[in-house]
Amino acid sequence: MADKLQLLKIGGKVLDDEALLAQVLTTFLHLEGRKLLVHGGGKRTSELSERLGLTPKMVDGRRITDAETLEVATMVYAGLFNKMIVSKLQSFGVNALGLSGADGNVIQAHKRPVKTIDYGFVGDIDQVDSAAINRLIQADFTPVFCAITHDGKGQLLNTNADTIAAQLAMALAPLYHVTLIYCLEKDGVLSDPHDDNSVIPELTPDTYAQHRESGVISAGMIPKLDNAFNALQVEVAEVVICGPQSFSRGGGTHLHR
Amino acid sequence: MADKLQLLKIGGKVLDDEALLAQVLTTFLHLEGRKLLVHGGGKRTSELSERLGLTPKMVDGRRITDAETLEVATMVYAGLFNKMIVSKLQSFGVNALGLSGADGNVIQAHKRPVKTIDYGFVGDIDQVDSAAINRLIQADFTPVFCAITHDGKGQLLNTNADTIAAQLAMALAPLYHVTLIYCLEKDGVLSDPHDDNSVIPELTPDTYAQHRESGVISAGMIPKLDNAFNALQVEVAEVVICGPQSFSRGGGTHLHR
Repeated sequence: MADKLQLLKIGGKVLDDEALLAQVLTTFLHLEGRKLLVHGGGKRTSELSERLGLTPKMVDGRRITDAETLEVATMVYAGLFNKMIVSKLQSFGVNALGLSGADGNVIQAHKRPVKTIDYGFVGDIDQVDSAAINRLIQADFTPVFCAITHDGKGQLLNTNADTIAAQLAMALAPLYHVTLIYCLEKDGVLSDPHDDNSVIPELTPDTYAQHRESGVISAGMIPKLDNAFNALQVEVAEVVICGPQSFSRGGGTHLHR
Repeated sequence: MADKLQLLKIGGKVLDDEALLAQVLTTFLHLEGRKLLVHGGGKRTSELSERLGLTPKMVDGRRITDAETLEVATMVYAGLFNKMIVSKLQSFGVNALGLSGADGNVIQAHKRPVKTIDYGFVGDIDQVDSAAINRLIQADFTPVFCAITHDGKGQLLNTNADTIAAQLAMALAPLYHVTLIYCLEKDGVLSDPHDDNSVIPELTPDTYAQHRESGVISAGMIPKLDNAFNALQVEVAEVVICGPQSFSRGGGTHLHR
């Protein structure tokens, strides 16, 4: 039986609220076995961009990453949030080590090709070096990944943190019994977006398809769930969608193959 | 005979000039044996602070690090420059891995106590975990340190990059034959600040004391040289003060015990 590895992804509201973040990191600290964290950048990237006089460019709800926005993202994700999380985990006795995809060449990506939209310096992942990441895990470090990758030719790239989490989970699945945990704001996938208590406790590909068709599952949740079911098909043992509260109780929405 | 380890410190002008940086990293790439890089943040920290409407606070030529300035330093050092250098080295085939002192708890510091001046979130180094750093080196990573440390209680701290380089060199000296290289703007320690060709090829504690007394060595150089001679007394094998050009030729000022 492979060792357990729990992979937690946090972002958005959790990163923006110091008390929530502390709560989530405390739950993370008590997880058994090997673990790994992935984070995005919350509102701070847009805030910093605005303070610098840059206008966040969005197309279809997606951020366009021009050269200046990439610099801001690199500063906020790889600098501010990554080091804040690492130092906080260290204070809890977790031997955290912060990583972008460039560090140790652990995640290599390519700039997304321009079709109708030029997303700018956005990277789609080509390969995850699970052996290098495992060397760090086996050396007793707890890797903390930010949402920055690189192309191996000296170009940093902005990559969706949910996707990084799913790709890491899939790459490490042959080595560990991997649980992928997405910690969002709400306590799980809701069947009624206006009722925080309407958490769907379990989802299978079939029930997910039904809920999608009937419009029960909100549009914003669909890319996350697609990523998650994709990961389950590539040997990831478990996927959980939860919030800070349900994470601490082992609750949330559990996804099964 | 211990393996060779070459420890290069870069900062200031080298970081601010893309062509100079590329030149220095190319020389670094060709250094034989194990290696390690330490960098500061150049002008970008002050520039970003100004764009954000913060006024850089200086006392006796030293930056006062308030909470906002620490955030800026963390973003620029640990984010922007660290990842830029790491991705550039990766593109050269060097398996660089970026670190702050918080990552893997490799450099722990304490906030400098307030005597007459409160320097703010400035850290004086308590300990370097040479075993943890060596685990990374032995796993074939090339560590790239930025000038951010932590206190082990969740507080990040701004620490002078020259001091980090010297402390790392001293901590690794029992394990390796360490050469500490400070790559500055000029080609070495000058005997005439107006003549870039007046590089002093060698300095011993005696000749350093003489040059200090006669005022030949400029004030800005003295803390660097004090650090350097200090390192030599703690088993560091060699210290070299050079510039981008002399670094590529193996020139500069060589310091001996």
